[in-house]
Amino acid sequence: MNINPTRLQQHFEAMSLIGKIGEIGTCRPAHTALEKQGFELAASWMNEAGMKTHIDNFGNLIGRLEGTNASLPVLMMGSHLDSQPYGGRFDGVAGVLCAIEAVMTLKENNITPTRSIEIISFADEEGWRFNKGLFGSKGILGKLEVADLERTDKDGITRAQALKDFGCDITKFKESEYKPGSIFCFLELHIEQGPVLDIANKPIGVVSGISGPLWLTVKLKGMAGHAGSVPMAIRKDALVGAAEIIVALNEIATLIPGAPTVGTVGTLNVFPASRNIIPEEVTFTVDLRDIDLERRHRYEKQLMERIESITKKHQLTYSISEDTNSEPRYCADWIKTIIHDECKALGLDAPELMSGPFHDALTLSYACDYGMIFIRSKDGISHNPLEYSSYEDLALGTNVLLGTVLQILKK
Amino acid sequence: MNINPTRLQQHFEAMSLIGKIGEIGTCRPAHTALEKQGFELAASWMNEAGMKTHIDNFGNLIGRLEGTNASLPVLMMGSHLDSQPYGGRFDGVAGVLCAIEAVMTLKENNITPTRSIEIISFADEEGWRFNKGLFGSKGILGKLEVADLERTDKDGITRAQALKDFGCDITKFKESEYKPGSIFCFLELHIEQGPVLDIANKPIGVVSGISGPLWLTVKLKGMAGHAGSVPMAIRKDALVGAAEIIVALNEIATLIPGAPTVGTVGTLNVFPASRNIIPEEVTFTVDLRDIDLERRHRYEKQLMERIESITKKHQLTYSISEDTNSEPRYCADWIKTIIHDECKALGLDAPELMSGPFHDALTLSYACDYGMIFIRSKDGISHNPLEYSSYEDLALGTNVLLGTVLQILKK
Repeated sequence: MNINPTRLQQHFEAMSLIGKIGEIGTCRPAHTALEKQGFELAASWMNEAGMKTHIDNFGNLIGRLEGTNASLPVLMMGSHLDSQPYGGRFDGVAGVLCAIEAVMTLKENNITPTRSIEIISFADEEGWRFNKGLFGSKGILGKLEVADLERTDKDGITRAQALKDFGCDITKFKESEYKPGSIFCFLELHIEQGPVLDIANKPIGVVSGISGPLWLTVKLKGMAGHAGSVPMAIRKDALVGAAEIIVALNEIATLIPGAPTVGTVGTLNVFPASRNIIPEEVTFTVDLRDIDLERRHRYEKQLMERIESITKKHQLTYSISEDTNSEPRYCADWIKTIIHDECKALGLDAPELMSGPFHDALTLSYACDYGMIFIRSKDGISHNPLEYSSYEDLALGTNVLLGTVLQILKK
Repeated sequence: MNINPTRLQQHFEAMSLIGKIGEIGTCRPAHTALEKQGFELAASWMNEAGMKTHIDNFGNLIGRLEGTNASLPVLMMGSHLDSQPYGGRFDGVAGVLCAIEAVMTLKENNITPTRSIEIISFADEEGWRFNKGLFGSKGILGKLEVADLERTDKDGITRAQALKDFGCDITKFKESEYKPGSIFCFLELHIEQGPVLDIANKPIGVVSGISGPLWLTVKLKGMAGHAGSVPMAIRKDALVGAAEIIVALNEIATLIPGAPTVGTVGTLNVFPASRNIIPEEVTFTVDLRDIDLERRHRYEKQLMERIESITKKHQLTYSISEDTNSEPRYCADWIKTIIHDECKALGLDAPELMSGPFHDALTLSYACDYGMIFIRSKDGISHNPLEYSSYEDLALGTNVLLGTVLQILKK
C-alpha cells in the first residue's frame, strides 16, 4: 500500500499560496483569516478522506475518521498550519498534509479502522504573535492559564479577542477538552529544521525526544537622557546593558564547541527609541535549549549571574519573567520501534535524533505516548522562506507514517 | 528694565498642558495637531507682544515685530516647540517663551526697535519622527534635500504628507526662504541638557559653540533560522553582531575617562522579531559627538574597523548610511562678550561651555553670527519627563536675553 506522491505535492503547492510572501515564503499568523483559509482547504481534503471536520473553541481544526468501535481511545496525528511571520512552506504544514494523505490512502484501500483516527491542525503552535506557543495543544488538554488569554499581539489585540474574531466561544473551552485516557497515542511528522539529516545524507529520521526550551523575557530599566550631553561615566544606558547580556548569552551557549546547546535573543525593543536619547528601557526575549537538562540549568544560572553583574555595572534595574520552561520529553520506545521497522521495510537507514525545536507533540507527551518522524531540511534552514524539504523525502516520510498507522491500528 | 517672572512661569505652565504625558512629561511631535495647538498658544502671546505671526511652508511659526527701518537685517531669536516622544517641558520651549517674554517687556517699556525682531519656533528640531532633525531651520536657509521629504515616520507617513496635513504648501518652499544677509544675528536660549552648570552650581552659562553630531544608520544582515535547531557554530545572527558593535562603540567613547566624547545607540530594530527565530536583520542608529573633531574622526574610523571585523566574524553583511555629519560651530565673540557683560551686570558668574546637543542655532551659524544662553538643568537630565530647570533660573536667563537684545539693537 502506497501513498500518492503527486497528490501530496499538489496539496503542498495549493497550501503554499495562502499567506504567500515573496516567491517561496509564508506568513500565516495564528487565529487570522489566512489561517482560516488554510483550515478550509485542509478540511476539504479531510472530507475527501472520509473525515468529519470542525473547528473547536481553541481555534484547532479537527478531522475525525470514525472507527467501527467509537469508544476506543483515538489515534491522533497532526501538527499546525500557522507559520512564522517570515517562514517557509513546510514547518507544521507537513504534519497536517502528510497525515491527511495517509488517511486518504486508507480510504482508497477501503480500510475502515476499529479505532477512530483524528488529525488536528493545532492553533498557534508558533507562539510569536502572543509570545507564547503550543496554544491549541495545551487547550485540548486543559493546560491553559487565564493569563494566556490576556496576552496581546503587537497591535494590542488580546488572545481572547483574536479567538472571538476567529469564531471561537471562549466561554466553552471545557467542551473542546479531551478527557484523560481518550487519546491512545500521538504521531507527528515534521521537517527537522536543523542540519543533522542533511549532513548525514539521510532523508528520514526517527525522533528520540524533544528538548524543550527555557523562554525568558528580560526587562532592563536605566535612565533616559540627551545623547549629546550626558557624560558616558554617569549614564544608565539600558541598551548597552542588553548588548552585553546578548554577548554573554552567546558566550555561554558556545562554551563547549559542538555541544547541542543553543541560546538566542530573537526580539528586542527599545524605549523611547529616539536616535538622540539614551535608551531608558529595553525588553528582550531569551531562548535557551539543551538536550542535557542539567547543563541547561547550569547555563541558566550562569546567565542570571551575568545579568546581575552587568546591570549592576550599568546601574540598571531588571526583571525577568519565565514564559516557558519545558523539560526534555522522550518518545515512546514501542512507537520508535514501529517507525524503525517501517523505515527498514522501505530500505531506509533512519538515524535517531533529538529535536531542538519543540512541537505540539511536546504538549501531547503529557497525555499519551507519542512518536515523531523527521524529514530532512536542506541546509538545516527553517523559520525562513528558504526552508526546503523535497517532495520525494516528504512522500517517503508519508509512507513511513502510513505504515506506522497500520501497525498501531493492529494494537 | 526687567521681565515679568510670574507671566513667564504661567506661559510655561500653559504650554506644558499641550501633549502632556504623565505628571510632568511632554510628547508633542513635529508637524502634528499637538504642535499646531502649541503654535496657536505661542502666536497669541506673540500678538500680545505686538508681533505679526504666520506659519511658513516648512511648518515654522514666525512672529515679527516690525522695526522702524524694515530694510535692516532682522535680529532673530527662537528655538522649537516640538518635543521628544518621552520628553520634558523645557527643551526648546524655553527658547521660544523666554524670547516672547523679552519682546513683551520691550513693548511694555514702549520700545520700538529700528531693526525688526523675529521669533521663530522651528519645525522638527528634534528629528526623531523622521530620523533627521533641524528641518525648519534648514528649510528657511534653503538647505533641504529632496530625500528629506521622502523620509517616513513609523506609521509610513512621509514628511511631505505630514507637511501637507499641517497646512504647508510644499511647492512654495522658495517663498519661505530667507535671502543671504537678511538675518543680522541669531540668539537662542536653551536648557543645558547636561550636568555642567548644575555641578558648578551656576544658573546661567555662556555657550562657546556646538559640537555637532555624526549620525549613522547601520544595517546588518545575517540569516534567519530556527532558534532551537541551528547549531551555534553555523549561525549568522545579526543581533549578536549588533550587540558586539554596541559594546564596541561604548568602549571607544569611554577610552579617555572624563573626555567629552559621547557615543549612543538610541534605536534598534530586529527582523523578523520572533522569539524563536535567529535575527536575520538588525538596523540601529549611531550618535557620536566630540568637541574635538579630530578625535571624533579617529573614533569613527575605529568604529568602522570594529564593524568590519565583527560582521566578518559572524558572517554578516552590512551597510552604513550617514544621516548627519556636523562640524563644531563656534559662537560669535562679540555676542559672547555682550552676554558675559549682561551676566556681570546681573551679578552672575556665568561659565563658558560647549554644547553637546545640537540646536537650531547650529543651522543658523552658517547664515549669520549667533549666540546662546544656557539655563542650568537639574542633574543634567533632559529628553526625559524628569527634565527640570527652575523658573527662577529661567527668569534670570530671560533678563540676560533681554539685556543682550537691547545691546544688539544699538548696533
